[in-house]
Amino acid sequence: MLSKSQISLITSLQHKKYRKVHQLFIVEGLKSILEYVDSAYQIEHLYYTPHMVTKMGKINENIKSTEVSDKTLERISALKAPQGILATLKIPEPTPIDPEIFSNRYTLVLDDIQDPGNLGTIIRTADWFGISNIVCSKESVDAHNPKTVQASMGSLSRVTVYYEDLFALLQNKRSPIFGALLNGESIYTTDFGSEGLILLGNEGNGISDALLPLIDRPITIPQFGGGESLNVSISAAIFCARLPHP
Amino acid sequence: MLSKSQISLITSLQHKKYRKVHQLFIVEGLKSILEYVDSAYQIEHLYYTPHMVTKMGKINENIKSTEVSDKTLERISALKAPQGILATLKIPEPTPIDPEIFSNRYTLVLDDIQDPGNLGTIIRTADWFGISNIVCSKESVDAHNPKTVQASMGSLSRVTVYYEDLFALLQNKRSPIFGALLNGESIYTTDFGSEGLILLGNEGNGISDALLPLIDRPITIPQFGGGESLNVSISAAIFCARLPHP
Repeated sequence: MLSKSQISLITSLQHKKYRKVHQLFIVEGLKSILEYVDSAYQIEHLYYTPHMVTKMGKINENIKSTEVSDKTLERISALKAPQGILATLKIPEPTPIDPEIFSNRYTLVLDDIQDPGNLGTIIRTADWFGISNIVCSKESVDAHNPKTVQASMGSLSRVTVYYEDLFALLQNKRSPIFGALLNGESIYTTDFGSEGLILLGNEGNGISDALLPLIDRPITIPQFGGGESLNVSISAAIFCARLPHP
Repeated sequence: MLSKSQISLITSLQHKKYRKVHQLFIVEGLKSILEYVDSAYQIEHLYYTPHMVTKMGKINENIKSTEVSDKTLERISALKAPQGILATLKIPEPTPIDPEIFSNRYTLVLDDIQDPGNLGTIIRTADWFGISNIVCSKESVDAHNPKTVQASMGSLSRVTVYYEDLFALLQNKRSPIFGALLNGESIYTTDFGSEGLILLGNEGNGISDALLPLIDRPITIPQFGGGESLNVSISAAIFCARLPHP
């Protein structure tokens, strides 16, 4: 049984304000939760329904956990179709960016991404392609938003998402900045060298005017048909897939 | 002013059952609606708020249209943030597939895609890369779902989405079938020739067992980091970007 106040604490974590207050976020579904068990993240509490017990193995051996009814899980879940298990996790202390993270690798830099699903999908794609750092502008959607966590499918456990003043950051970088723009060189002929920052813009407005002069190499995904633009998570994926890999 | 029954007809179009009954679907936002104005689609009715009048130009000259209050538009809209204009459009008569649509070009074939946003994003991406036909299994999400239409950003006006029995279709095709699988040849070294069907599977279960033997070339997007899989709209995009273009 969960008390009313426990339930309201958990559901409050669907809002950024309360994630900040409690320094906690939610992960749902056994597959995703297992990825955090094997990571540097700390699981604060597990809530699971009776029919999950046989599937859970020993994951709750060293984790505080509470069995709850299907009805209670529905109440605390942020999903339309709850998956029988929900964890609250500690939000890690933000670490300052070590400039070394830009050396000899590629980093995605996201300028005001607003859609939580897009950010989650970008985290999942970055993980697949071995990109372990993403830098977001401070106005971007929160990486611990339940929809972002859900769309990242566990990859947030491996990809570090920083929130920084992009202008200051990009002004002082040493790696080349590749910007996803509509009027640059073709991504098919771009030599991405051995390191770089891939800058992608907001869903509606693209890259901020203030950041445009800082771009070293404007890069375009050529258009062969119709439409005004690509979804930003799609552009990010096409860049990730084009980058040289070890 | 709209009557209660007009409002309920429009909101009913958020459900597949009533789209079928009325043979209508919803498009929202001026940018998207304009793409359908210049297409083979027939707009049945336009609903717009007073502040849209100056932005609309002459699009409602030959279209039945009704000015409605912000409040009414909010009631008929399927969006959290309604965009001031909503159109109902006739669902085109499904045309049987002409096998010629597979010749000398690439076609996406989607096996039971369930997420409306994924299908919409795939339509938008296909359009960008000049792929004008998508074939879905009959159990796939409806292309006229408001979330699909929204995510397609007008591209549904240019891309034809067919619903077919995939087993029968793929058994009788003449073009090669490339299947997105986890254990195939690398997409980076695949020669896609000059035509083909790109088969992508369901979000959770991948390509159906029944279709696997029909695949000529299993193709893999190599993994350089972590994660279990890519989002299907991301895989589709990486395929679209790799296909030879004129």
